[in-house]
Amino acid sequence: MPKDGTINRERILDAAQHLVIENGFAATSVDQVLRAAGTSKGAFFHHFGSKVDLARALTERYVTADIGQLQAALDATARVSDPADRVVAFVRHFEDSAEEVMSAQSNCLYVAVLTEQQLVSNGTADLIRHAIEVWRTAIAELLSAAATSRDLDLGDVEALADHVFVTFEGAFLLCRSTGSPEHMRAQLRVLRRLLTAALSAEPVGREASESAGREVG
Amino acid sequence: MPKDGTINRERILDAAQHLVIENGFAATSVDQVLRAAGTSKGAFFHHFGSKVDLARALTERYVTADIGQLQAALDATARVSDPADRVVAFVRHFEDSAEEVMSAQSNCLYVAVLTEQQLVSNGTADLIRHAIEVWRTAIAELLSAAATSRDLDLGDVEALADHVFVTFEGAFLLCRSTGSPEHMRAQLRVLRRLLTAALSAEPVGREASESAGREVG
Repeated sequence: MPKDGTINRERILDAAQHLVIENGFAATSVDQVLRAAGTSKGAFFHHFGSKVDLARALTERYVTADIGQLQAALDATARVSDPADRVVAFVRHFEDSAEEVMSAQSNCLYVAVLTEQQLVSNGTADLIRHAIEVWRTAIAELLSAAATSRDLDLGDVEALADHVFVTFEGAFLLCRSTGSPEHMRAQLRVLRRLLTAALSAEPVGREASESAGREVG
Repeated sequence: MPKDGTINRERILDAAQHLVIENGFAATSVDQVLRAAGTSKGAFFHHFGSKVDLARALTERYVTADIGQLQAALDATARVSDPADRVVAFVRHFEDSAEEVMSAQSNCLYVAVLTEQQLVSNGTADLIRHAIEVWRTAIAELLSAAATSRDLDLGDVEALADHVFVTFEGAFLLCRSTGSPEHMRAQLRVLRRLLTAALSAEPVGREASESAGREVG
């Protein structure tokens, strides 16, 4: 058994993450991961009991980074005093890092994990659900503060908060199918413009009925 | 070689589609498909040269159905005379069939196909790109008509049109990760409300600057 440290574990995870995002989990073999990481089978099984354990470790690390990105965006916009402006600035923060995200990966690890029923059933998907809930709670709080400050009815604030996750995942798939990573920024920009419109609506009392729309002025 | 007709081919495709959506493409074996379809290896290879050929046939059939859904929504809303109201009715059409869609499948076949690099590289993903382009063109036309009729600047209309695909795909992943199919309807409702707000904005001339938002009235 070779002497393995955290560095080796991280190197295996880095190699595996790239392969799983590119090729899918079932299509990635342990041997491919070992070759890409330049490490031995002994080293691998020192850190991970099985390929499924590796998937769990990958997802755990990805979730931690994902929640870190959320926190960074919250921190970066903490000094925007108007709550509605903060929502817009929050989305713009991700828009500004879209190219960086897409140069590092061609898809989201969550897509690969959620594609495999065994990972959905064995609890790995629960880690993703946790990340979704953390994002939902934080963004719903931003949206609620904005709605209160502008006297707006934003409808189901938690579903609206989830739409940020939905936009990211859908945009990853759009980039992947078209081979055009610039769709990530474009979709985040669409989200920002749509939220700007929702936050610029008439206050509750004066709001037109939801489906009727506005008379042409 | 058994005598095989279209019925047998469709039965194989039905069984394969269910398995691939549930478990992923690489995790689905030809033997599993044969068992689920109740057919023989001979019958399978009469219709499909390989598992990759099967993936292509599955995707072709799914794309045809997908474009059929688009056309059905366009037809169902063709008599809505106000172009902005038609955009809203178009999204509501999908909202109203969300439970039906989610009771038939737990995820989108596109997610499974796009997860596998071999299917992205070998041209299968190009079929998905074609579907995306058909949706984009049709919806961008609806949006452009609405923008003109209300004298609105909707920004990048093609990216806004793509946001419908993005919402579907992201919502499928949200449903899959949480095990709650009701997120599909909730996300389509969010999309409808956001588009309603965008279509109810002030006309171009009077529009506030994009990022500044509205003064509290």
